[in-house]
Amino acid sequence: MAFYLLPTKSLFQPRIISNLFTKCIGPAIGTNLLHRALTTTNPISPEFGFMFDIDGVIVRGTEVLPAAIESFKKLVDSNGKFRVPVIFVTNAGNNLRCQKAQKLTDLLGVKISQEQVVMAHSPLKMFKLFHNKRVLVSGQGPIREISKNLGFTNVCTVEDIRKAFPVLDVVDQKKRENMSRKIDEKFPHIEAVVLMQEPAEWDSALQLIIDVLMTNGKLLNPPAKLPYPHIPLLACNMDLQWMAEAWMPRFGHGAFLVCLEELYKKITGRDMIYTALIGKPSELTMHHADNMCQLHARSLGLNGSVKRIYFVGDNLNTDIFGANLYHRYLTRQRSGRSVAGIAAAITGRGSQTCELEIEQEDVNVSAEECHSILVQTGVYNASSDTFSNHSPRDFLPVEEGLREPAFCVPDVLRAVELVFQQEKFY
Amino acid sequence: MAFYLLPTKSLFQPRIISNLFTKCIGPAIGTNLLHRALTTTNPISPEFGFMFDIDGVIVRGTEVLPAAIESFKKLVDSNGKFRVPVIFVTNAGNNLRCQKAQKLTDLLGVKISQEQVVMAHSPLKMFKLFHNKRVLVSGQGPIREISKNLGFTNVCTVEDIRKAFPVLDVVDQKKRENMSRKIDEKFPHIEAVVLMQEPAEWDSALQLIIDVLMTNGKLLNPPAKLPYPHIPLLACNMDLQWMAEAWMPRFGHGAFLVCLEELYKKITGRDMIYTALIGKPSELTMHHADNMCQLHARSLGLNGSVKRIYFVGDNLNTDIFGANLYHRYLTRQRSGRSVAGIAAAITGRGSQTCELEIEQEDVNVSAEECHSILVQTGVYNASSDTFSNHSPRDFLPVEEGLREPAFCVPDVLRAVELVFQQEKFY
Repeated sequence: MAFYLLPTKSLFQPRIISNLFTKCIGPAIGTNLLHRALTTTNPISPEFGFMFDIDGVIVRGTEVLPAAIESFKKLVDSNGKFRVPVIFVTNAGNNLRCQKAQKLTDLLGVKISQEQVVMAHSPLKMFKLFHNKRVLVSGQGPIREISKNLGFTNVCTVEDIRKAFPVLDVVDQKKRENMSRKIDEKFPHIEAVVLMQEPAEWDSALQLIIDVLMTNGKLLNPPAKLPYPHIPLLACNMDLQWMAEAWMPRFGHGAFLVCLEELYKKITGRDMIYTALIGKPSELTMHHADNMCQLHARSLGLNGSVKRIYFVGDNLNTDIFGANLYHRYLTRQRSGRSVAGIAAAITGRGSQTCELEIEQEDVNVSAEECHSILVQTGVYNASSDTFSNHSPRDFLPVEEGLREPAFCVPDVLRAVELVFQQEKFY
Repeated sequence: MAFYLLPTKSLFQPRIISNLFTKCIGPAIGTNLLHRALTTTNPISPEFGFMFDIDGVIVRGTEVLPAAIESFKKLVDSNGKFRVPVIFVTNAGNNLRCQKAQKLTDLLGVKISQEQVVMAHSPLKMFKLFHNKRVLVSGQGPIREISKNLGFTNVCTVEDIRKAFPVLDVVDQKKRENMSRKIDEKFPHIEAVVLMQEPAEWDSALQLIIDVLMTNGKLLNPPAKLPYPHIPLLACNMDLQWMAEAWMPRFGHGAFLVCLEELYKKITGRDMIYTALIGKPSELTMHHADNMCQLHARSLGLNGSVKRIYFVGDNLNTDIFGANLYHRYLTRQRSGRSVAGIAAAITGRGSQTCELEIEQEDVNVSAEECHSILVQTGVYNASSDTFSNHSPRDFLPVEEGLREPAFCVPDVLRAVELVFQQEKFY
């Protein structure tokens, strides 16, 4: 079987595969999988499901990958109905789930519902503590509508701050020309910051977000001493880079976070604090995706729950790390950890205040195993050493073992074929 | 005298002033100054000159400070001719020296010539090694004309790269819409990068400058392995923040450099290398300003050279540190160090290649002493601990003693009065 797993261009040798196999999944589960591959008969109702990353797995920029179209032909029946549960888990977040679902439908020629789409910001709906606070939301596109759909009732944007306090945003000379000196003295204090996705015009966003953190959201009346810890800060999507159309990876939201963290540190001498980090590889996001996968199984009329998740991604630090981290969580969950436990696992210092507020619904159903499959159509390039050595956030515990995929295949089609053979599902 | 030095709002106590006095200037020179204050008679031809920082000393944003207008009335005679040499040393650099001189003339009501203006990029004219190379210049405003005036013959900008390779610049969704996929395959390789001043649209600048560094300037044909060390990188103006119209300091070029350094480090795992760091507090810039000051003295028909420079600034890390660093250099210069030695002192690793190429003219005339005077009308705020603990570049040796001003006064008028009394010049 090890040989079957080997993609033509893979760097892995059979002994390394078997090594990874036991190292990533753990000896017991590895043995289970091997055993199942040899003995399991095709169940009437599949006990497994897929999670797919999108950029670098299904699409590159605006182009769909041919292998993705082929693989989805295998995933649906003649009526276009899914034969197995399928969820898309993306760290993209500058558009609505319904927009993403429609785009995937157009690209794949298969009807995708928004219930199958998990975006970086999706778990924010569980952070009810912040929904009625005055929140600065950073990102692009329809971030007001996204925030509203997630439950936020009182948001403002970087652009709102710029309009209220024009003299605070002066890096860009063009903005300085004919700049109004008028200040909105009634601009409400900001109580929390949500970094939804990478913004445009980083000079403005970095300056004004740091101003908010350094003034406790009271821009017009900065305290004489640095307020520390600063007001709560939630961030979605830690991807340092992602694979678009270009021949080199492009900056993701993680790159913006690096700038923000380092500027805050340089100016204040203190560490910026994340109340929560959301999106792959966080266990909270994986748990949310697991829940969506179970719901998709139900919507397909399948009996029983999804026991085994196969996560197909192109990024060692988000997809593979996230899947392996969640697999480890699943093995621990049986000892009785709650979703609050997950939050604790993914949040930084100062996170205790929001743990208890995390929505508890739908945590009863979850998978038993989560297996990672790396494809080489995206950001991961086995022939390059340039982009393979970075965790999305330094303080996340990126244990080497957790960055190693259970399987390594050339593309998403080979991933689906592999899992079908594993599960004897034809 | 110590009491005379004390501004109303100063935190310094007399004993601390005298302590600073000896600590910053050095006991011997301190004694010289005290002695001169008591004994020197008003020379027919002054042996001292002024260097003024502009932002936070002369102006705040677009507004001139009243104290500046008063002080310049004392610096010129009834015909508007300067009585003592005066040079402006600013880390600003997104406009031409003639534009800056005209702006100062309009604000101060005194004719300022461009020969009195030293900007962050002015010493680049000495780096002839790069003048005929294909150079990426980062900044805003008339950077092509600035580069041409400095001697560069073959420059391109971040915007040129964006037009040649649109798919490389995709952070801003608006730029992505209707983005051309056309690529200029004949775009010449880039051989060096000059970070002239903070650019606008940091997302584009950070992405494309790092692309240039990671591909050795060959964007279309990136090497499989990271090229390291990367192509030469020169940076002007390390100011982390500066004081504009707003009530809080605003990002300077140093803030952009922090982002660039940290992203390069995060993505490549290596340190970004500065071939040279130019602008205050670098000794090279101070030496260049000293030279301009000597030339201004000659243009005023004064006999002899300027022996004592008084540098008036608002920033401990650039103005005060730069003045004290240069004072230390002057005391060492008598032991025979050349301007190449200065370059060595301010350049980072890999700087040897350019040291020998630095223009050697006008290094024969220089001052003997350089004394720092801190004003409190700008970025330095004695009542705040927020902005006072940062060196512009971590690897510059910011010894505490070098960050302490020889004198601390409320504003530039008090600074001029203080120096006139010191020099018994009425």
